[in-house]
Amino acid sequence: MIVHDAAIMPALDVPEWARASHFTDIESPGVEYAFLRACRGESTPFTPVWLMRQAGRYLPEYRRIRERLSFLDLCRDSQTAAEVTVGTVRKLGVDAAIIFADILLPLLPMGLGLEFAKGEGPHVERPIRGIADVERLPNVSVAETLAFVGETIALTKAELRGVAPVIGFAGAPFTVASYAIEGGSSRNFTETKKLMYREPRVWHGLMAYITELTSAYLRMQIEAGADAVQLFDSWVGCLSPGDYVDYVLPYTQQVIASLRSSVPVIYFGTMTAGLLDVIRMTGADVVGVDWRIDLDEARDRLGENVAIQGNFDPVKLFAEPAEIRKGAREILARMEGRPGHIFNLGHGVLPGTPVDGVLALIDAVHAYDRR
Amino acid sequence: MIVHDAAIMPALDVPEWARASHFTDIESPGVEYAFLRACRGESTPFTPVWLMRQAGRYLPEYRRIRERLSFLDLCRDSQTAAEVTVGTVRKLGVDAAIIFADILLPLLPMGLGLEFAKGEGPHVERPIRGIADVERLPNVSVAETLAFVGETIALTKAELRGVAPVIGFAGAPFTVASYAIEGGSSRNFTETKKLMYREPRVWHGLMAYITELTSAYLRMQIEAGADAVQLFDSWVGCLSPGDYVDYVLPYTQQVIASLRSSVPVIYFGTMTAGLLDVIRMTGADVVGVDWRIDLDEARDRLGENVAIQGNFDPVKLFAEPAEIRKGAREILARMEGRPGHIFNLGHGVLPGTPVDGVLALIDAVHAYDRR
Repeated sequence: MIVHDAAIMPALDVPEWARASHFTDIESPGVEYAFLRACRGESTPFTPVWLMRQAGRYLPEYRRIRERLSFLDLCRDSQTAAEVTVGTVRKLGVDAAIIFADILLPLLPMGLGLEFAKGEGPHVERPIRGIADVERLPNVSVAETLAFVGETIALTKAELRGVAPVIGFAGAPFTVASYAIEGGSSRNFTETKKLMYREPRVWHGLMAYITELTSAYLRMQIEAGADAVQLFDSWVGCLSPGDYVDYVLPYTQQVIASLRSSVPVIYFGTMTAGLLDVIRMTGADVVGVDWRIDLDEARDRLGENVAIQGNFDPVKLFAEPAEIRKGAREILARMEGRPGHIFNLGHGVLPGTPVDGVLALIDAVHAYDRR
Repeated sequence: MIVHDAAIMPALDVPEWARASHFTDIESPGVEYAFLRACRGESTPFTPVWLMRQAGRYLPEYRRIRERLSFLDLCRDSQTAAEVTVGTVRKLGVDAAIIFADILLPLLPMGLGLEFAKGEGPHVERPIRGIADVERLPNVSVAETLAFVGETIALTKAELRGVAPVIGFAGAPFTVASYAIEGGSSRNFTETKKLMYREPRVWHGLMAYITELTSAYLRMQIEAGADAVQLFDSWVGCLSPGDYVDYVLPYTQQVIASLRSSVPVIYFGTMTAGLLDVIRMTGADVVGVDWRIDLDEARDRLGENVAIQGNFDPVKLFAEPAEIRKGAREILARMEGRPGHIFNLGHGVLPGTPVDGVLALIDAVHAYDRR
């Protein structure tokens, strides 16, 4: 059980009604968290909201912790990772906790030399470029090597019981593969696509391996108590619909199918406005979209059987609070009367984002249903 | 009149039928270039094809010229710029020439200190960040300061008369503004959007200025002989549809309206799958889309009154020729029986692209209608 350390991550002045909104669920026995109801497309008394990277570099409390702990050390320190997760939920008054971790952690047991250089993002020392690199990949138990993530989930869950559900997550096979191949972030994904087009044996071997690993990793997180899981396919929008179907869809489907509907699965990507027809085939319960499409249009294309998450432009959090509130209301108005909407950004909170902007957004979402 | 210098840019082994396809137009008096017919949504005997950045770093002939001339010096040297333009058309057998220039040339008379550092892309020394920067912008005649672009067009046009139409171009106001504000290329366009959201006076002042400049610049190109013009709004896909309407659409419309339908206008952007409904309102004759949406779906959303250009993934040019041909056929099959399709990439040819891949693509497009 975590004792929440107010000195590290102080609970903030969240308006009373916003706090109360979390507790709606537990104060009425038999009623579930709004977030989980929305994941299943059920009606909710208010639109639940959480933010990708809600515990991130924009928070002074987080930056202070990072002064003494590297990014990876913080991920591995389940106690502190859980404190960061929980403290953020209490500070922001969001309706779900997402565990503090990274989409690329599964690259650690793969032995490719993953590093997070300060201020430079992830770097993979020995990227995958040929069949020998794939054949060399170790046979590992991710449940053991990444057990610390399960521990973080268990600690968070114990602390937040009755307050907010806990979301586990992993990178989706395509996005993890793209980092493993490019060696870091990329603009055009040239190496990834070259492998895809020219070396199908290498591509499919790598994707099959990552799919197994990701499935086991998410099952471990669910066993540890995750109430939902999100698959981050952040860069999948670099693909054409046809290439998505040929090279990626079977693996996304396989990961999701392996979880056997034990908890809701959110599938998130950016630049996917033209991919929604094929993303619908993944089997995800919820699809997360960015701001590059109107949310009602995205919903139309996904169909009513899939819930939707998004789609506030994270850069708009740099605007004045009045503009932020207006933007939030526009999105909410588009989804009026259509259950199955989880409010979120269209991508993670950016470093440098004003905390006041984030609080204004969450407030605006919660205020909407109390007009 | 340019004497085509075969030593600089040798005419290549283009198959006889592909060569002939250009000439279809002039050999039958009264029949126009297939490219221009397609721009107007009229039927064509074959699907015309040209490639963004068709004269680029991937070509050894071009790299040799760049050994003695900087990028900007090459743009300013109309004779050589026209040779590069014409030589590429002859080498590739494409159905349109796009003038050798850069979307950011209008930043030169704006006096912001534009530079093209070797291998690093454009850099703006004094980016726009406040109202004083906008008020300081000079009152310039772009027709005079960028007269060399008109000269390049006139020289190219004279050389290619009866062979291929000549496309002039400019950056669209949003994309030019984003470079002027960010100071270079950007991932999240944070500074651009901050200005947009927080400093509307600065934003609208800058956009109005660039709109005037761009309109005059394109009118000059049309007077010099451009048969069509393309507005490159390469990064407009970083915006939500709502922000596009509020902050960008009026300026795009104004540029296009100022040309008074004198020649077809192509409006191109990437990551626009969710923006097509608002892009339809620009008044463009042709809309260029990337590979992130199926072309028939994009066409459906734009309506039959607008022609469409795209949408082959430029990274697929790194694939084996058989895979390239297959990809080309898939796009052509989607547009079967629907006139108003100009085959192109979804973005520019990348440095390092195999020339054989480019030739295979053009061949596949021309071969399709001769099956």
